[in-house]
Amino acid sequence: MKAGYLGPKATFTDLAVRAMFPETESIPYRTIPGCMDAVLNEEIDFAVVPIENALEGSVNITLDYLVHEVDLPICGEITAPISQHLMVHPEHAEEWQDTEIIYSHSHAIAQCHKFLHQDLRGIPSENMTSTAAAAQFVKENPEMKAAAIANELAAEEYGLVIVKRNIHDFQYNHTRFAVISKKPVKLDRTKALGFKTTVMATLPSDRAGALHQVLSAFAWRKLNLTKIESRPMKTGLGNYFFIIDIDMEADDILIPGAVAELEALGCGVKILGSYPYYQIGRKTRDKASNAH
Amino acid sequence: MKAGYLGPKATFTDLAVRAMFPETESIPYRTIPGCMDAVLNEEIDFAVVPIENALEGSVNITLDYLVHEVDLPICGEITAPISQHLMVHPEHAEEWQDTEIIYSHSHAIAQCHKFLHQDLRGIPSENMTSTAAAAQFVKENPEMKAAAIANELAAEEYGLVIVKRNIHDFQYNHTRFAVISKKPVKLDRTKALGFKTTVMATLPSDRAGALHQVLSAFAWRKLNLTKIESRPMKTGLGNYFFIIDIDMEADDILIPGAVAELEALGCGVKILGSYPYYQIGRKTRDKASNAH
Repeated sequence: MKAGYLGPKATFTDLAVRAMFPETESIPYRTIPGCMDAVLNEEIDFAVVPIENALEGSVNITLDYLVHEVDLPICGEITAPISQHLMVHPEHAEEWQDTEIIYSHSHAIAQCHKFLHQDLRGIPSENMTSTAAAAQFVKENPEMKAAAIANELAAEEYGLVIVKRNIHDFQYNHTRFAVISKKPVKLDRTKALGFKTTVMATLPSDRAGALHQVLSAFAWRKLNLTKIESRPMKTGLGNYFFIIDIDMEADDILIPGAVAELEALGCGVKILGSYPYYQIGRKTRDKASNAH
Repeated sequence: MKAGYLGPKATFTDLAVRAMFPETESIPYRTIPGCMDAVLNEEIDFAVVPIENALEGSVNITLDYLVHEVDLPICGEITAPISQHLMVHPEHAEEWQDTEIIYSHSHAIAQCHKFLHQDLRGIPSENMTSTAAAAQFVKENPEMKAAAIANELAAEEYGLVIVKRNIHDFQYNHTRFAVISKKPVKLDRTKALGFKTTVMATLPSDRAGALHQVLSAFAWRKLNLTKIESRPMKTGLGNYFFIIDIDMEADDILIPGAVAELEALGCGVKILGSYPYYQIGRKTRDKASNAH
């Protein structure tokens, strides 16, 4: 088996892959579409890509590419905590407080706002394409008094020293990663926190209350929705599709019944996947979602 | 009156401000939060910021800042077409096809994918913070064989020559801009395409079907919803708030009735604004939204 992930090495996606698939060979890809195309072209057996972050919301490129560009099912979901650390070149470990510039992904810099404001006030920061790329850059430029914000694996992979741990503002920050594959990936069902079904629905145009009707088809069956997200159809302002997560595995009766009803109402419906979900990097099992 | 907008000069936001408020002095701000803070601090009378694009979806930073950080109403909405042009330094206008690098905002580069693939295949592109910043950079570096993708105003403002017009893939691309103000901004109601009310709702946690109940409060009153968007509450994965656009101006009966019902069900509800909406830069009046 070969896995692809959103690289470079030591991104948070890489961390999730190593925790979930410790025995699997894995290959970094530069972009999320590149990762999914590699599944399509059978360069890899499955891809792991971020799909939602607790602070930033859905990863639009993942949803859009799954809906508009490739016909690949979601086979599993992994939720991982996001912990950011400040790291420097080993030569500067002692005098890290003299740092003159901080490199990271823009989201990571935003997530560490309080720490940066208190401990490194006024030090400029520069955005990189990933936290891992920032760590690599800091390692390759030892002449600069630079620091990176990245995860533990990046410090290890690129040989940096962590000088301050857990500098993120919010302790509950998590990211969900989707496992995308042509053929079913063997996941250990006994370790799953639960099962979900993800559905994409489009509405018949210009009918008031259409979304309410869609939700009724789930509500009267007591199908619990854990997420609903709208995305533009790319056919003009005001045309959306909806991504709906149902808190159960696809069955033979309730979900097919709801789908048939929606189609009869003029909606487009596509099941994007029915799959187990997992949580890694935590000792307690706390369920990740609330009910809508 | 003084307006603030997401700068620098000659962004699409600046274009919208000049079309909508031709007589008003306007000041560019570097960021969307900076723009809204300036309203709060009374440096300006109102701000114009992008809130949704037909291809990219909602502008999350605008929604999040309005909901989490500032208590300012939306007073109006402007929809403007997005037309991208290729422009170069006047010295290179003749041999523009020898361009060696293209600068623009990442969204603009993505929006011109087909043109770039056909007419400038293999030429590298580099992301800038805005299309206007790209135009400025190209002007300031005449020694480079560089091109920018930006709007007409940017070519004029920074003295570049448009060598290829309307290079965007989709002709229907539009952006919606919100007018944010402490005090009501005088807008010409007779020129409005219509009126909208934007509501933010949070759901009581862990109750199946809560979103369905929320939509019911609107549906049985025949209140037409033109948009529903979920955003993370930033309190943990799976906790969302919803932004709902109702296709009518706030009244004394229906909308207050729906809000009271939602509050009785345990939802948090806040009206973010009730305002006229406008379309600029088009001769035909085509209504921008469909019904949900």
